[in-house]
Amino acid sequence: NFLPRCSSPLTSRFMDFPFVSPPHKQLMVDLISSVETSLGSSLLPCSLPPDVQHFESPNGDAQGSLYVRSGDESSLVDFILGSWVHCKLPSGGELNITSLSAYLKPHTDAPNFLIELIRSSPTSLILILDLPPRKDLVLHPDYLKTFYEETELEKQRQLLEKLPEVQPYFSTALYIRAVLSPTAIMARIEAKADESARMEEIIHEHISPVAKDLLKIWLELCANGNRKVEKDECLQLAQRDKVFKNMTIEIDLGSSFPRLFGHDVATRILGELKIVYNA
Amino acid sequence: NFLPRCSSPLTSRFMDFPFVSPPHKQLMVDLISSVETSLGSSLLPCSLPPDVQHFESPNGDAQGSLYVRSGDESSLVDFILGSWVHCKLPSGGELNITSLSAYLKPHTDAPNFLIELIRSSPTSLILILDLPPRKDLVLHPDYLKTFYEETELEKQRQLLEKLPEVQPYFSTALYIRAVLSPTAIMARIEAKADESARMEEIIHEHISPVAKDLLKIWLELCANGNRKVEKDECLQLAQRDKVFKNMTIEIDLGSSFPRLFGHDVATRILGELKIVYNA
Repeated sequence: NFLPRCSSPLTSRFMDFPFVSPPHKQLMVDLISSVETSLGSSLLPCSLPPDVQHFESPNGDAQGSLYVRSGDESSLVDFILGSWVHCKLPSGGELNITSLSAYLKPHTDAPNFLIELIRSSPTSLILILDLPPRKDLVLHPDYLKTFYEETELEKQRQLLEKLPEVQPYFSTALYIRAVLSPTAIMARIEAKADESARMEEIIHEHISPVAKDLLKIWLELCANGNRKVEKDECLQLAQRDKVFKNMTIEIDLGSSFPRLFGHDVATRILGELKIVYNA
Repeated sequence: NFLPRCSSPLTSRFMDFPFVSPPHKQLMVDLISSVETSLGSSLLPCSLPPDVQHFESPNGDAQGSLYVRSGDESSLVDFILGSWVHCKLPSGGELNITSLSAYLKPHTDAPNFLIELIRSSPTSLILILDLPPRKDLVLHPDYLKTFYEETELEKQRQLLEKLPEVQPYFSTALYIRAVLSPTAIMARIEAKADESARMEEIIHEHISPVAKDLLKIWLELCANGNRKVEKDECLQLAQRDKVFKNMTIEIDLGSSFPRLFGHDVATRILGELKIVYNA
């Protein structure tokens, strides 16, 4: 039975993004569709168990969804990982996080892709958007030049920086800061208390085009690029990728998932993610 | 004749910092004195030629001074480098830059030290203050933990960040961003147009204690620390340090010095610095 498990009715829940605003949902769907169109059949169907594709906390206050597609043998893509998390807050508000990350195999040294939107109120958004480098930029200025200078990513960062609602965001996790590139967009966006419409406008008119441009660069230059590396370097990249992935799971999910979903659900989800990450 | 050339009357010019405000001068003198007291006789006397210790542009609009002391054989310190540059601006104002950097030898992997103050008007200051890491932090989370998390450097960064006059500063050189740590202080500080006294207060009451705390950590944990590395890693560190130093000279001085001091003076100074950097 080779029917992809993702084509069950459960699957549609991921792409539904049922708890976020229309512009927020549209952005996520557009990004994932771009990746899937560009990479086509080189992406294998999602094979996560249904209870990892969609899960909730015992009391139902928190829900989440994961979507993973691995690259086939011919692909430079290791896997793409989409996620959303929704959680009712004790204050009466809600927290919504959506993310898309894409990891390449150690046969290439090109950067990964990452976008994460953290919405803690209708007027408050944290955005992380970057092509995280896969080599030490201090030792490899040529890599910095190819992927960050010649692509003019700094211009994209400045497009958002100049909006009056945008302030730089500093992640409390120093490791997360360390994995990002010098042109990473780390922004805290605050609209006035009664201006949630302005936030939707910022997502639609400012964040969306920048995110799509970054993804386009990633697809052309990285996922469909032609940078292959020799065996020695491949081993080094695999080692760096492994530390990066383990630390990311530990920092990003290891602390928040047990809190949001309880021990049992969190253990199931993290266990499945570790399989994907070390695949 | 082993009399250190720095003990000539010319030398005093470096420590005079003749063009900056008293709190700015006091900060630089205090930092350099701390380093010299802590490292004592393990620092060799400055042996720069007099015309590199102090130099000016052909028309006299720009002046500069360099001060270099190398570590002796027993020391983990490669060298410390102090500098100041003063330049009259066409607008009638003046530009003053002072810096202190300290580089360790590849026998240890501990971070370097860097402070730079760029003053383009009495009410405008750019501050760069950091312990630049000497290893890829993504691959070495334990290094991040030892030098940046356990030292609580983030608290120091936040002390300055919370001042209303302070905004994050993004260097136009992506390489400079890449060499800094996740807790680097990169700040653009702007006082109101008629409040240069407030800027002096910020230097004296806020920047100075933070800079001294960072230097104290560097002296205890890095310059006088006990992290020695094996031969293989020593070679890797030497390679990374070399790229770092060459890129830093190229970006930081290679473009500005010819503009400020003319081709001949710039060539003399850069030539001498390259000797120091590759020593």
